[in-house]
Amino acid sequence: MKGGIHMSNDKKITIGIIGMGRIGNVHFKNLRQIDNVKIESICDILAKDDWVEKYSVKKIVKDYHEVLDDSDIQAVLICTPTDLHPQMTIDAAKAGKDIFCEKPVGFDNAEILKALDAVKKAGVKFEVGFNRRFDKNFDRIVDYRKNGSLGNEQILKITSRDPEPPSMDYVRHSGGIFMDMTIHDFDMARFITGEEVDRVFVTGNVMINDEIGKAGDIDTAIITLMFKNGMMGVIDNSRQAVYGYDQRIELFGSKGMAHADNVTDSTTTYSSKDNVAGDKPMFFFLQRYMDAYKRELESFFGAVRGEHEVQCTFEDGIRAIRLAQAAKKSLDTGAVVSVQDI
Amino acid sequence: MKGGIHMSNDKKITIGIIGMGRIGNVHFKNLRQIDNVKIESICDILAKDDWVEKYSVKKIVKDYHEVLDDSDIQAVLICTPTDLHPQMTIDAAKAGKDIFCEKPVGFDNAEILKALDAVKKAGVKFEVGFNRRFDKNFDRIVDYRKNGSLGNEQILKITSRDPEPPSMDYVRHSGGIFMDMTIHDFDMARFITGEEVDRVFVTGNVMINDEIGKAGDIDTAIITLMFKNGMMGVIDNSRQAVYGYDQRIELFGSKGMAHADNVTDSTTTYSSKDNVAGDKPMFFFLQRYMDAYKRELESFFGAVRGEHEVQCTFEDGIRAIRLAQAAKKSLDTGAVVSVQDI
Amino acid sequence: MKGGIHMSNDKKITIGIIGMGRIGNVHFKNLRQIDNVKIESICDILAKDDWVEKYSVKKIVKDYHEVLDDSDIQAVLICTPTDLHPQMTIDAAKAGKDIFCEKPVGFDNAEILKALDAVKKAGVKFEVGFNRRFDKNFDRIVDYRKNGSLGNEQILKITSRDPEPPSMDYVRHSGGIFMDMTIHDFDMARFITGEEVDRVFVTGNVMINDEIGKAGDIDTAIITLMFKNGMMGVIDNSRQAVYGYDQRIELFGSKGMAHADNVTDSTTTYSSKDNVAGDKPMFFFLQRYMDAYKRELESFFGAVRGEHEVQCTFEDGIRAIRLAQAAKKSLDTGAVVSVQDI
Amino acid sequence: MKGGIHMSNDKKITIGIIGMGRIGNVHFKNLRQIDNVKIESICDILAKDDWVEKYSVKKIVKDYHEVLDDSDIQAVLICTPTDLHPQMTIDAAKAGKDIFCEKPVGFDNAEILKALDAVKKAGVKFEVGFNRRFDKNFDRIVDYRKNGSLGNEQILKITSRDPEPPSMDYVRHSGGIFMDMTIHDFDMARFITGEEVDRVFVTGNVMINDEIGKAGDIDTAIITLMFKNGMMGVIDNSRQAVYGYDQRIELFGSKGMAHADNVTDSTTTYSSKDNVAGDKPMFFFLQRYMDAYKRELESFFGAVRGEHEVQCTFEDGIRAIRLAQAAKKSLDTGAVVSVQDI
Repeated sequence: MKGGIHMSNDKKITIGIIGMGRIGNVHFKNLRQIDNVKIESICDILAKDDWVEKYSVKKIVKDYHEVLDDSDIQAVLICTPTDLHPQMTIDAAKAGKDIFCEKPVGFDNAEILKALDAVKKAGVKFEVGFNRRFDKNFDRIVDYRKNGSLGNEQILKITSRDPEPPSMDYVRHSGGIFMDMTIHDFDMARFITGEEVDRVFVTGNVMINDEIGKAGDIDTAIITLMFKNGMMGVIDNSRQAVYGYDQRIELFGSKGMAHADNVTDSTTTYSSKDNVAGDKPMFFFLQRYMDAYKRELESFFGAVRGEHEVQCTFEDGIRAIRLAQAAKKSLDTGAVVSVQDI
Repeated sequence: MKGGIHMSNDKKITIGIIGMGRIGNVHFKNLRQIDNVKIESICDILAKDDWVEKYSVKKIVKDYHEVLDDSDIQAVLICTPTDLHPQMTIDAAKAGKDIFCEKPVGFDNAEILKALDAVKKAGVKFEVGFNRRFDKNFDRIVDYRKNGSLGNEQILKITSRDPEPPSMDYVRHSGGIFMDMTIHDFDMARFITGEEVDRVFVTGNVMINDEIGKAGDIDTAIITLMFKNGMMGVIDNSRQAVYGYDQRIELFGSKGMAHADNVTDSTTTYSSKDNVAGDKPMFFFLQRYMDAYKRELESFFGAVRGEHEVQCTFEDGIRAIRLAQAAKKSLDTGAVVSVQDI
Repeated sequence: MKGGIHMSNDKKITIGIIGMGRIGNVHFKNLRQIDNVKIESICDILAKDDWVEKYSVKKIVKDYHEVLDDSDIQAVLICTPTDLHPQMTIDAAKAGKDIFCEKPVGFDNAEILKALDAVKKAGVKFEVGFNRRFDKNFDRIVDYRKNGSLGNEQILKITSRDPEPPSMDYVRHSGGIFMDMTIHDFDMARFITGEEVDRVFVTGNVMINDEIGKAGDIDTAIITLMFKNGMMGVIDNSRQAVYGYDQRIELFGSKGMAHADNVTDSTTTYSSKDNVAGDKPMFFFLQRYMDAYKRELESFFGAVRGEHEVQCTFEDGIRAIRLAQAAKKSLDTGAVVSVQDI
Repeated sequence: MKGGIHMSNDKKITIGIIGMGRIGNVHFKNLRQIDNVKIESICDILAKDDWVEKYSVKKIVKDYHEVLDDSDIQAVLICTPTDLHPQMTIDAAKAGKDIFCEKPVGFDNAEILKALDAVKKAGVKFEVGFNRRFDKNFDRIVDYRKNGSLGNEQILKITSRDPEPPSMDYVRHSGGIFMDMTIHDFDMARFITGEEVDRVFVTGNVMINDEIGKAGDIDTAIITLMFKNGMMGVIDNSRQAVYGYDQRIELFGSKGMAHADNVTDSTTTYSSKDNVAGDKPMFFFLQRYMDAYKRELESFFGAVRGEHEVQCTFEDGIRAIRLAQAAKKSLDTGAVVSVQDI
């Protein structure tokens, strides 16, 4: 029967997780639902002894080199802060591990390119964690595009608004809204359309919290994308949508339009003398993308097994960063910025 | 009972219609549903004798001066081609008629200002026909803004796509996409937000029909709006949405978001082994805005009777034209254009 | 252009309206939008002199025989209380007038059959005013059925709830909920499915207003329909839905399901920290079915002109009454009632 | 942060699963996501040696007494065919195990009462597996009822249609549509309203597959529910909805209506020249209720830990069976059946 439950017969993959912050724990929880993957060790500089019991994992270490030195481990998940990604990637590649790395792949262009070089030389698999590529709603848009239902692509629209701003401490170390938040949308712009962006124009402002402005960042933006093939797109961002996480994408073409709407807490409506009220969109990414996070890992392990190509490559990671950098430059200069000039 | 049927006791207004093309006929049909308005005469350079019977109107004339000379007539509807609007407005104002004029109020800035001057001097009422202001869905957004439900405005989004391009002959005399099509969206940007636009940035292209490009126009555009109060907006336009007239507006603020979706041919869905299919959006403006056209005239007559202010003034008409001109300049220069520099 | 505005060239039909209560005024207002129909006279026992000006109709009379005696009048609209329908129908038929009669065609079976006989003998056109047959949403369901999209019909579901109960005075003279309110749903059950009902089972109660119970009526009911072809259906009725007029129909078959949802006041939603709120369904029948009332008359005049058959016949009117009577008997007996036994 | 990921510190519960058919595997998969539950042994008469590796569970047995004899095991999940439920329940209760038992609790009334008696005597926890009680959409309706938003309950509507009929072999051993399929809806009728059903009336037929009729069963039904408090309800069932699993519930009361719509495969729509098409409802119960199955187990373990009452008791299981039996009698007799007479 379609959609039935079965136990996989795939070869077991032994892995290590480096970094057990919020996203590390998300992946840990999802891994328990994935067949034939064994978590050999967990690494975190704040690791505690009782994690052996808490996570039911025998090897709890504080130094990631211990993970890389473990010859039983075939692949690692790098879930540490962004500035650590390039060096860890280099070390993991040298150790011959396949690598799943959280986004973005790094902050510094030179370091990123060194890491890319190390990955290429080592010939290991490398996947960037752009989870939204694995959202089933957005995936349907790509289905429609690939099967020709949309015809020639003309307009892309991405709405991407967080329910609440991060802490000011987070803001200060985030790399700015484009590198921290819009980077997902830049990746989606490429993923959804299958096309490359040529130029960007940005208008942005501080409309939610003056502290964000004092930290040199903005909280609200509209980014116009001009693609190489002539099509165009627009992303609108806000750090605070009081009604919840707002994640919609629309691709318009000569033969039709595909539109992915928000996912709500339930399908239940309440009709009263006042209105017909439905539930809000899911609160934030942990709710909305929980299933996508799981599918993301499943896809990574499929790539590790050689069943298919890596779905989100190092180059994808770099291109999203370039777009974020171009957006920042456009905001700073007030002018259109060509991505190849970054 | 709420919403009941009643016959109005308002004083009768006697009017003349100048121009009986498509929009003139739309207004004629709606006028038959409006109480206490008498159509005294109809003017069109192509008027025929049998129109007396066809329209059940006694005076059918070819020269609009005959309408203006008729002392029984209190107000006129100017429904002729755009280039005739300024002179007819001047003449009607001098004749002391209240004026409803189709959009745009003119093409030439100097002529437009002369007409404005004539209207001011004559002290007659003047309303521009931006019908979308009277769409009940868009009106709801304004309700939410005015009653404080949205908090501080931050992002405006307007989707405006026609179902099919006009004839090439129409395109050549249209004044270009911004003056012909986007002008409605520019007016809505001001009406929905209650704010003024400071700068615009446009990216546009020919993606539907090369002939449109040869005529010096484009058919697809994304227009970024930077408002004086710091908020921002985006309009996306296409001359051809195969699924029908796409008219959506969304206003996002610190306390919430109001979103007006398309109006479809029916509320009926068909669930089959393939999908759950609903009807398309209404075909085009004559379907979607038929009720708005009627409410527009009712509002004009309310203003003529002195019951309320004119809802869409001459200045509104001029400001929309300025935005269209700024958009054209941005498209031509590839740069951000300040509206006050137009 | 599709959906364009045009003036009809059909032959003019001269009519009289008998009864200017609420529904008579609804029809009057709609008639002003219909080409080539002339209202020659209006009849109401409470008619006043100033109606000549109020309605712009020359002949205002109090005795309906004056309308029937007018040889210029080709068709009449009977909009009087139900108990007057049969005799007026007989008189109008004898006078050779085509007849549009509001529902139900009468209360008393013997009188109704006499009226049917008179109509048959006179050979005049007769249409019953079941306005919902002309609702575009419900019509779409019939489209899907007729074009085979639904396959074999299996389950019909009708939700039909009024926003507020009528006055107690109205309730006492209404003929009971089945004859007054459900009669529309009985007609829809036949219209939507194209099939005849064999048996009914009813459960009902007084849940809204005890006064309704004291008047010998109920205000809430579920009616199960067993059709001759084996399919089944259910109607649920309430005299009070606080969220507005609830009018939904669903037809389920072997190849798919068509579902007509409510029509709301607007397509605009408001997303806030509490929920995503849309507007309520339209308030009541005058709002929801205004367009259907107009299409109903247009269809009647098409039948008068011989362009097509009468869309809702005398027999349709009788069959709906039989179903209402069977429902009442089922409620009273608590048993299944065969319609042919009524 | 709301909805964040955390590892529970609850005391570990050791369990055994009896019966590893389809639903046994569903529970097994969900158990891997639930903290602090250890699957000590798995029992199935068809168990194979390689299940030790397949399920990573050490004790794989064929005789369920081995599970009951294991003093390490605190609770068992009974996932065997219905006719085995009563005896296994009795044995498990005697062994002092807390019991989660799939629905229905049995076929034979005498056996069921014996099992109930055994559970009471043993004082063990017993929960019936009515998974739909844990669907978040239906749960929202109960929220609205409990917080007073609906006022006095008046009408309940349940639509419950399977995407495809089961195998004829399954049909023959299912106990009939009411015991196999509608039993869920009967439980929901009680759960959603919080009220008890007094009488039922059923109309049903074979409309999908004649073989089902030859097996003495039906495949399409409408069940009217008359509640003790005067409110009324209706369930409509079909064994085959080509568009997928159709699971909707609506509760209408004096202050408003709560309506839980289907859950679709995605939120993505495709607008083309033909229509605006959305994805179908999820295929069947394994897709639609996967999350509910997990929440169901979490709730059971919560009850085992004493954190709250059992959410779906033995009595709930019996009452649903009584309703199924009353429905069968109504179908057979064509008459209204009082539930207390069963």
